[in-house]
Amino acid sequence: MSERAIRLHTPVELAAGVRFGLDARATHYLAKVMRATSGDVVRLFNARDGEWRAELTVAKRAVTATALERVRPAAVEPGPTLAVAALKRARLELVVEKATELGVAAIQPLATARAVVDRVNHDRLAAIATEAAEQSERLTVPAIAPLRPLDAVLAERAGDRPLYAAVERADASGLAEAVAAHGAGDLLIGPEGGFAAAERAALAAAPGVVAVSLGPRVLRAETAAIAGLAVLALRMSG
Amino acid sequence: MSERAIRLHTPVELAAGVRFGLDARATHYLAKVMRATSGDVVRLFNARDGEWRAELTVAKRAVTATALERVRPAAVEPGPTLAVAALKRARLELVVEKATELGVAAIQPLATARAVVDRVNHDRLAAIATEAAEQSERLTVPAIAPLRPLDAVLAERAGDRPLYAAVERADASGLAEAVAAHGAGDLLIGPEGGFAAAERAALAAAPGVVAVSLGPRVLRAETAAIAGLAVLALRMSG
Repeated sequence: MSERAIRLHTPVELAAGVRFGLDARATHYLAKVMRATSGDVVRLFNARDGEWRAELTVAKRAVTATALERVRPAAVEPGPTLAVAALKRARLELVVEKATELGVAAIQPLATARAVVDRVNHDRLAAIATEAAEQSERLTVPAIAPLRPLDAVLAERAGDRPLYAAVERADASGLAEAVAAHGAGDLLIGPEGGFAAAERAALAAAPGVVAVSLGPRVLRAETAAIAGLAVLALRMSG
Repeated sequence: MSERAIRLHTPVELAAGVRFGLDARATHYLAKVMRATSGDVVRLFNARDGEWRAELTVAKRAVTATALERVRPAAVEPGPTLAVAALKRARLELVVEKATELGVAAIQPLATARAVVDRVNHDRLAAIATEAAEQSERLTVPAIAPLRPLDAVLAERAGDRPLYAAVERADASGLAEAVAAHGAGDLLIGPEGGFAAAERAALAAAPGVVAVSLGPRVLRAETAAIAGLAVLALRMSG
């Protein structure tokens, strides 16, 4: 047996002795990219069962894993939800990767008046989140919600959890100060051109929304998302 | 005259009535990308003279600018210096762009034992910093220092300014807490594989170095740089 520094998410239930074939993505990665061979030991994880050592059997077109023993118990990974306007493809992909590393619990792409796209590649974003979770030693993979309008997302929120909305407004307090005052919450990042007037009115009327500033400079939307999560997630995870 | 939402850095001295030909980069951007025409008014800025309205004269192969009046005075833009291991090209370029948006004063690429490259494209990094400064309403463009070894950079530092070194070490305090305790300072981010033993010893012996944590997850080096600057620069700029 050879321990490999490889860590893969699996949707399959993990328990001692469980044996199962890996999916196409994991098979390709293990057999072609990492040149895994039978007897190699890797780590597998999912949100329910924690992280397990697992031994591989590599055949011509399939890789089978046998779970050996658990090395990390399942754990809740508390983190903010990020609601972010549908940015251009590369920028949204960057946000998903970095948000996952920074501990986000879920990502909600938003359709807004000034959003640059009206559809997002959900499967591609979910794959990026999975890979970033594997790389960053997370046990959970953040859920990528389907694209929805801002008002529908606001209508569903419980008003007792703060939603920190990054705005370019002189009277907004700094995010770190707002989190110190209001506690753990979620982050809302608008599109490159900002929210439209009707959206700003909806935000002002929604319970729990706290307008925050991310400093004196003009940040691109993806920078605002990553910077805001850095401040928020690092504070929430201690 | 037509006001254009265009903002360009220039190395030329700006004063009322000063007239000068723009360089190849600005000429290309104005004439080809933005399709500027004679009479268009843009903003020009540099660190010494602040930001100016300037009227363009667009000829076949040259664009001339005439400074009209100052709209923002020169200002000191305090920010941390980022010392960062020479990452792979795309990752280092991302760091330079985002660090500039987040207000970094200067960027020092580091040659380290485990750095993935032994040279960086200095001109390309400087151009990225310039473009990010133009986009983010900065008045200054962060200097990109030439690649140097970690020990040379450490030897030159004054010990009274903290250098926050992101390390994966259980006893390191969180960056936000460290900044609250020690005050404004600079940020040090190692290579993807971490610092080598000799480098860790040099860091431990260097005056002013404060080991800090960026949370419980494993961050890619470029994520650590951006997240650390978000925490540090937002705090330093108020």
